[in-house]
Amino acid sequence: MRQETHRLSFRSHGKGLLPVTRPVLEWVRQTGISTGLLTLWCPHTSCSLTVQENADPSVREDIAHYFERLVPEGKDLYRHMDEGPDDMPAHLRTMLTQSGLSIPVVEGAPSLGVWQGIYLFEHRRVPHHREIVLHLLGE
Amino acid sequence: MRQETHRLSFRSHGKGLLPVTRPVLEWVRQTGISTGLLTLWCPHTSCSLTVQENADPSVREDIAHYFERLVPEGKDLYRHMDEGPDDMPAHLRTMLTQSGLSIPVVEGAPSLGVWQGIYLFEHRRVPHHREIVLHLLGE
Amino acid sequence: MRQETHRLSFRSHGKGLLPVTRPVLEWVRQTGISTGLLTLWCPHTSCSLTVQENADPSVREDIAHYFERLVPEGKDLYRHMDEGPDDMPAHLRTMLTQSGLSIPVVEGAPSLGVWQGIYLFEHRRVPHHREIVLHLLGE
Repeated sequence: MRQETHRLSFRSHGKGLLPVTRPVLEWVRQTGISTGLLTLWCPHTSCSLTVQENADPSVREDIAHYFERLVPEGKDLYRHMDEGPDDMPAHLRTMLTQSGLSIPVVEGAPSLGVWQGIYLFEHRRVPHHREIVLHLLGE
Repeated sequence: MRQETHRLSFRSHGKGLLPVTRPVLEWVRQTGISTGLLTLWCPHTSCSLTVQENADPSVREDIAHYFERLVPEGKDLYRHMDEGPDDMPAHLRTMLTQSGLSIPVVEGAPSLGVWQGIYLFEHRRVPHHREIVLHLLGE
Repeated sequence: MRQETHRLSFRSHGKGLLPVTRPVLEWVRQTGISTGLLTLWCPHTSCSLTVQENADPSVREDIAHYFERLVPEGKDLYRHMDEGPDDMPAHLRTMLTQSGLSIPVVEGAPSLGVWQGIYLFEHRRVPHHREIVLHLLGE
């Protein structure tokens, strides 16, 4: 049994889902670990991780619109607005999705379903430098 | 330290919570691992995993009604409706709950509280064949 | 590779975020494990775990207000009210956040971002005795 850790860096493009499946799968492959547990951790409080349908681009548009309704911006709604009207909604959207994901690795790959893709969900309007911490334990 | 993996299959009965605690506990027991980390992964994008009150059946009804309000169906709300009006709400309900759960195993069982049950949360109207990937690492 | 388990106990003070980062980090340090995977599990159905901004106290107020809007109390909304009007909203708020968190440990500490704190999110009005189960696997 052994473990590997890694950090992936991304440039987000404002609010929305950024696909990260490919570099995650590539890193898992490079470790040579075929059975184990993969954990992703997003060390930010205004972006998060989610697993979503990876086929139809309109899914990602619908998600964006839904989250604007679910956690609206609005200067009357929040006290904390240090970094603008998208600051507090970003924290709340992070809470309602995930900061971390743990996925079993079987036969050399995370056991994602055919339609599942891993996304970094950026909640801030302005592009940011973002990181994901990776940990893989197995053999 | 060793690891075991498994797949459980279920037939869902349309929208709602399907209890899965019993077969999960049974598999953990059969592995003979008494201390470790159990991970469940749901490889679908229109059902999810959740931990909930396992005693009063009205809790499950209230959850069903709440999620209809939180993520309503509606043809004006979404563009992605390839598989019907429950398609996009199913993706969103999956995002707002979990695709994976990791639970410490202590003294031969996942450390669930007395009132906690593990459920597969089906978000589609029509019954589906569903799977849960299990991974257990420990000794 | 080895593993350690532990239980932390807290007294919550009614609805809101209770910071737990410090005792979690202290326990991780005491195990002497420098690289690994830390898992926290909350064995309750009316409080949960979340990772949030740890600097500005108004963030915690905004979160409290937002969750009152997102999952309102109300006797017409729910059937399950065995323990009062905050009973069913507590279960729903638990579902929409997390019962468990798994965080990679690198260089002797969980890889939390600078602004990330771990909180127990109490959803009941009355103070409760609460526990968090900890599991750490690594070397």
